[in-house]
Formats: sequence, structure tokens, C-alpha cells
Amino acid sequence: MTDAPPPKPVTACIVVIGNEILSGRTKDANLAWLAMQLNEVGVQLREARVIPDDTAVIVRTINEVRAAFDYVFTTGGIGPTHDDITADAIAKAFGVRLIQHPEAARRLRTHYANPADLNAARLRMANLPEGATLIDNPVSKAPGFKIGNVHVMAGVPLIMQAMFDGLRAGLKGGARVLSRTVSAKLPEGKMAAGLTELQARYPDIQIGSYPYFRGGQSGAAIVLRGTDAARLAAAAEELKALMRALGGEPTEDDESSG
Amino acid sequence: MTDAPPPKPVTACIVVIGNEILSGRTKDANLAWLAMQLNEVGVQLREARVIPDDTAVIVRTINEVRAAFDYVFTTGGIGPTHDDITADAIAKAFGVRLIQHPEAARRLRTHYANPADLNAARLRMANLPEGATLIDNPVSKAPGFKIGNVHVMAGVPLIMQAMFDGLRAGLKGGARVLSRTVSAKLPEGKMAAGLTELQARYPDIQIGSYPYFRGGQSGAAIVLRGTDAARLAAAAEELKALMRALGGEPTEDDESSG
Repeated sequence: MTDAPPPKPVTACIVVIGNEILSGRTKDANLAWLAMQLNEVGVQLREARVIPDDTAVIVRTINEVRAAFDYVFTTGGIGPTHDDITADAIAKAFGVRLIQHPEAARRLRTHYANPADLNAARLRMANLPEGATLIDNPVSKAPGFKIGNVHVMAGVPLIMQAMFDGLRAGLKGGARVLSRTVSAKLPEGKMAAGLTELQARYPDIQIGSYPYFRGGQSGAAIVLRGTDAARLAAAAEELKALMRALGGEPTEDDESSG
Repeated sequence: MTDAPPPKPVTACIVVIGNEILSGRTKDANLAWLAMQLNEVGVQLREARVIPDDTAVIVRTINEVRAAFDYVFTTGGIGPTHDDITADAIAKAFGVRLIQHPEAARRLRTHYANPADLNAARLRMANLPEGATLIDNPVSKAPGFKIGNVHVMAGVPLIMQAMFDGLRAGLKGGARVLSRTVSAKLPEGKMAAGLTELQARYPDIQIGSYPYFRGGQSGAAIVLRGTDAARLAAAAEELKALMRALGGEPTEDDESSG
């Protein structure tokens, strides 16, 4: 513990753009991955939205969330086909023109060595909002982009992850949230009063209770999250004492961050 | 095809309430399952939001989405512990009191045969917004509830699914969205112009292109979605002809709904 005031939290919202997620055809794999990565750099994911490939909805959503959070990350809708409308919608959200970005076009020309392969549809992937800067795509070259606090990435998890890996060093995080998870084979309803009391004494620690049923026995994983390791350790010790007092045997799942 | 006008689409929004999803600790399993179930009864999932266990955010989100969609389904935050604040927040969103629901309390009393086990924390699960009706919980008894067009369910997938199974028959769906998925080992950039042209001639069919990379070869799954089976079949035949003209061999992944 230091005497310096805790850094201001830095917040983020993820916008998953894609009809295929809303139809249930594709299970989103990006949200959980990004949530953990953001936490590693001290950015707290505060909200996520899944929206369709619909210009009006994208424009409205982006303008709402870019004003409310420090960072916005989108996934999906930046490929070569007619249903890839994210870049155009983001330009509309920012009130700027969609222009052919010279460096993006250059990268596509280098990637498709045979000029016949770089057809109009593929070259469309170089059309970005005026003023946007590129997000590298080491996998398939067609870049993502950043405009204002909005980071526009691919939906394919492998490509999205490669894009985020390139962004990571440039993100300015705040306090990193640490967590400890203590479990016991006690129904959460039995621990509830004690947890309420513990939460009241540790307002700086977020205490979450996650019940489970395994082999006919009910238990709960209690997750403690906060930015101060010493406070977290003190709360974890009190939690373990509470569990023992109720006849449970506390076990700690991990002591890592996240 | 009939001469009757197509039924008006019936829309839904899912609100996943839970810090554990935003921290990346837990992967949401409810969205994809609910998306498919809703489609089966002719309800189109148009948006999903993941929000924290935060009263102000829940109130604001619920009031926004219940005005914008025919149905709202929430998951999470209805257990016995201090971090279960969904019922209270929903009452605030509707501007009604939180009251002890007599039938919910009766069910809990029956479930916890030993009165000592039904402590204050557990009895809190019977506190529901005034005017709410119960959603049965065959698994662990503590019910979900419905108020207006908002359906409040548990976050544990097994319990949520059992709750939704009970709700299903009461939902009034519109036209069911059918889908066909045709794939070919062709890069989507090669098909893009043809797909744009196909989409222009089938404005009633939603055409989505989902690229994949398998064994070093790129391909794309083209998903056609619409409510009219005959129109869908016509579009699928044209799509297959397009793929063959480009040197690809179309394969149909499935012809089921979804």
C-alpha cells in the first residue's frame, strides 16, 4: 500500500457487430478473451453489446458508447462482402467521409501480388473513415482502424487477437484489478448474511458469489476483486474465517489476477 | 408462398447481468442458447447487452430496451446474496415497490422444509416488483418473474433453460426465420461482387458471408436467412450456380432452421 490516491479507473465497452451472433449460428469467442486482456493492461470492461449488421443501429450504438467509456472496441463487419458495413457506419457515426486510405490500399496491393486478384470488393477494405489510423493485421493484411477512442477490429478471433496484440502497448490503463477466488462446499444462502456484512466493511472490494452444484453437493465460489493486494488479502482471510465458522473448508482456486 | 402479407417481425433483446461475464471469469453460455430458442418460436433476437451488477446501469438499460423491443429477457442476479440486485433494480425501472410475493415465499417455505434453513437472505428471493408474475424454477424453486414485457431469469444456464422452457408456450412469435448455409472453398473476396448482386435481387433474404481458413485453404460459408422457404430455395440455387461459375464446388451444411 502506498499513500498515493488510487488511479482513476479506465473503462471500456465492447461492441460485437454481427447477425451471426444474434441468430445463434456463431458463438461469440471475442468478449471473454478481450475482457481478460483489457484487465491485464488496467482497462475495466464495463459493458458489451451485440448488435446486427445494420447501419442505423451501429451509428446510434457507437455514438452512445464512445461518449460513455474511455475506450470502445468493435469486432466484425470489416471484410470484403456486401454485409461488411462497419467502416461505412463508423464514418457516419463520426460525421466524416469514407475515403480510400493510401497505406491500407498499398498493403492490399502488396498482399495481392496479382493485380487481377485485388478486385473492387477487396479494395473496398481500404475504404476507411477520414482521419482514421490503421490497426495492423499480421494475418490477412486488410487492416482494422482507430478513430477517436473507437478501435475497429475483425470478427475472426485469430485476426482480432493479432490486431489487439498490436494495440496493447498503446493503451493507457489505470489500476489493474486483482482477484482472489475462495470456494467452499456451502450453499451461498448460508453465507449470504456474512457476505453482506463483509461487503459493508470492504466497500473497496467487489465481492461476487457464484453458486455451483457438483456431484449432488452445492457450493459457492466467492470472488474478491480490487486494486489493492493487501486489502484483498485481508478480505480473503476474513472470508475464510467466515466459511470455517459455518462448517465449511475454504479452498483457494487461484491467487492470480483477472 | 401464400398471398397473405408476411407477419410483422417480433423482436427481442437479451440483457446479461453479471460482473463475472465482464471480468472474463465466466464465459456467457446463455446468449447463443436463447438466440436459437427464440428463433424457434418466431422471435428475432435483435440485440444483446452485457451489463454489470449496478443498479443505475440496470435501470437505464431495462428502460431503454423494454421500449425498443417486443420482448426483453434478462439473466443473472436473482440469488440470495448481496450482489443479487436484479429484482430491486427492475422494480426501480418500472417505478413500483419491491414486495414479498406470497406465492414465491410459499414455494421457498415448501422447499426449505426446515424453517431454520429459510433465513432472511434466502427469503429475499421472494421479494419481487409489485405486479410481477412468477416464472417457474423446477430446479431450485426460487422463481424468476415477468413484469410488462421483461422476463427475469436466473444466470445459471441449467436453471435459465428450465425457466425458459416454461415460458416458451406463452410467447407470441411472428414469422419464423429459416436459414440455409451453402459453403465453397472460394475466398469470399472472389464471391463478393456476385453476392452483392444476389443480395440486390433478394432484398427479402439476409445474406451473410462468413470466411474460414481450414488446412491452408480459404473458404466461406454463405448463410441465407428469410421467412419464405421458396424464396430461400431460389436464392440458394442461384448462389450454388455463382459458386460453380467461379470454379467452386458448393456444399450445403444443413437445411434446417436457425
